[in-house]
Amino acid sequence: MDIRTLEYKNNKVRIIDQTKLPLKLEYLNIDNIRDMWQAVKELKVRGAPALGAAAALGVYLGIRGSKAKQFEAFSRELDIAAKYLATSRPTARNLFWGIERACSIAVRNRNITVAEIKELILKEGLALIEEDKASCRSIGRFGAELIKPNQTVLTICNAGILATIDYGTALGVVYRAREEDKNPKVFSCETRPLLQGARLTAWELMMNNVDVTVICDSMVAALMKEGKIDLVITGADRIAANGDSANKIGTLGLAVVSAYHHVPFYVAAPASTFDLSIDSGKQIKIEEREAQEITGLFLKNPQIFKGVNVYNPAFDVTPQELISAIITDKGIIRPPYKENIRKIICQANSI
Amino acid sequence: MDIRTLEYKNNKVRIIDQTKLPLKLEYLNIDNIRDMWQAVKELKVRGAPALGAAAALGVYLGIRGSKAKQFEAFSRELDIAAKYLATSRPTARNLFWGIERACSIAVRNRNITVAEIKELILKEGLALIEEDKASCRSIGRFGAELIKPNQTVLTICNAGILATIDYGTALGVVYRAREEDKNPKVFSCETRPLLQGARLTAWELMMNNVDVTVICDSMVAALMKEGKIDLVITGADRIAANGDSANKIGTLGLAVVSAYHHVPFYVAAPASTFDLSIDSGKQIKIEEREAQEITGLFLKNPQIFKGVNVYNPAFDVTPQELISAIITDKGIIRPPYKENIRKIICQANSI
Repeated sequence: MDIRTLEYKNNKVRIIDQTKLPLKLEYLNIDNIRDMWQAVKELKVRGAPALGAAAALGVYLGIRGSKAKQFEAFSRELDIAAKYLATSRPTARNLFWGIERACSIAVRNRNITVAEIKELILKEGLALIEEDKASCRSIGRFGAELIKPNQTVLTICNAGILATIDYGTALGVVYRAREEDKNPKVFSCETRPLLQGARLTAWELMMNNVDVTVICDSMVAALMKEGKIDLVITGADRIAANGDSANKIGTLGLAVVSAYHHVPFYVAAPASTFDLSIDSGKQIKIEEREAQEITGLFLKNPQIFKGVNVYNPAFDVTPQELISAIITDKGIIRPPYKENIRKIICQANSI
Repeated sequence: MDIRTLEYKNNKVRIIDQTKLPLKLEYLNIDNIRDMWQAVKELKVRGAPALGAAAALGVYLGIRGSKAKQFEAFSRELDIAAKYLATSRPTARNLFWGIERACSIAVRNRNITVAEIKELILKEGLALIEEDKASCRSIGRFGAELIKPNQTVLTICNAGILATIDYGTALGVVYRAREEDKNPKVFSCETRPLLQGARLTAWELMMNNVDVTVICDSMVAALMKEGKIDLVITGADRIAANGDSANKIGTLGLAVVSAYHHVPFYVAAPASTFDLSIDSGKQIKIEEREAQEITGLFLKNPQIFKGVNVYNPAFDVTPQELISAIITDKGIIRPPYKENIRKIICQANSI
């Protein structure tokens, strides 16, 4: 099935409204930066790689109407747009990377006309879309080598087509293994509170004829004990220079139970998810979201008595020592991570 | 607040219908064994210790109308009632123990009249109620020694007043610590799929003025990493002779992440939860429940696409090596479990 997570079409950014899935496949046409901010904040568009393209194009939507004639004035508007969009969500590296890409193309071309710069920013956003497609395919190719025929993969949240432009990172590996006739099976953690595993991962895998079973997040250890899981692959929202990886809340727990049960634990992400400006995961800002997401968003009636406290961190950080390997578009990175990330990612990101 | 989980009143077993909490505090008056079977199956009454009393009284409801005059005929009816009730749920030891207690009092008194035997079975059920009250208080007293002032306890599912006659096992320890002015705080895992942590534990702790915060099950590792959890206390549904403990699905994962983060992991249960007829947890039958509990029971609309597979095991088994100590009504049992369980529990159960 052809699922188009994010496109630029008729001067608008067209996204699937992921809060409606799997009940409805509904599209949103976004033509201004405020609506993009809202869409990111409310997870209508989500997934680190998809946020890269959404951010760059969001910046474009923010400045395309600029009346500035000189670069300096334009640059101030660009800066405001960039800073505004950056406040939507704090954890995913790719969001900031997409914004930076849009801004830096402008700065590097300050000597051409503002109209031309605007065009370059749009082109940069569109280039990100194409790069993401290629990078997911590359992650899939590298990662599929880690899957043997008929193995069962466990994943959390959604690191698939819906988290990228298409194909996915963690699920890209599964799709590629399927194309190689390895017949992979998937267990998808439902991923409370927002159920991205139940709503999105199960949906897109089923649409693409991959055998998928949904479980509650708490069931993973029992499945591993029964020998039902051969490997774990998750996405990542930000990876530090030492390999520590932030991802959907619950990923750290998966990594710990994987290590205990000797199940390989892999992280799949493009080079753009690496943040080499931070030494370790300790410096990653973790987004805390509203209690309402736990108490009421997807639950019939509030099932939690009024006045009870609720805590809702959206991400956790898995320390590098629990990660068997990181599957990137530049190759598979194994420990020692500090050294090997520098080798493979610095070179690729030309930092 | 005076919460009466289960009482025998006006010739009926009166229970709180726990599927309605926390929205409604509604009572059910059960006057026949079929309704008791249904109430147990549907978790209207649940929690290993409460199931012990429910089972013994359920057997009584099943035979009190017997027209048998001779013990032999009565015994056949008793056997049918016992076997029927035993099919309601497979994992909790106390259910079978309650049934056995009711049957064995009959067999031991086969020489008196059937009417007198019926009275003895009722008395045995009522005795179980009183024993459970005393045993929870005893668990609380022993367990509270493990809690230092202002510590934070993590728990899963509901091992509180609502899982027992009153006071609770794991939460009994918390209530006792509170009575000792230790000001314990609690994080309660929401406990998917049936949300007993969110619906029941949070409710009863709040009713009893204990500071409680609900989290999703997947958030535990992140909290431990941040140093927010001092100790874990869970209940148990069946404990093998070697200490392996079956409890609500997700408990094994808690135990593994606790060990990784050096957080003490305690199981609290009365002697009646021990099943010394089995050497290890491998022999514990794990109940698998309907997919509907995950896909629809508490979720607005089905959030899982039609046709997607769902797997719903209700319990898992935590191996004894992950358990720091077992808090029982006979004292705290520490490793080596095989030896110490035999010493403390065999003696108590006079096996």
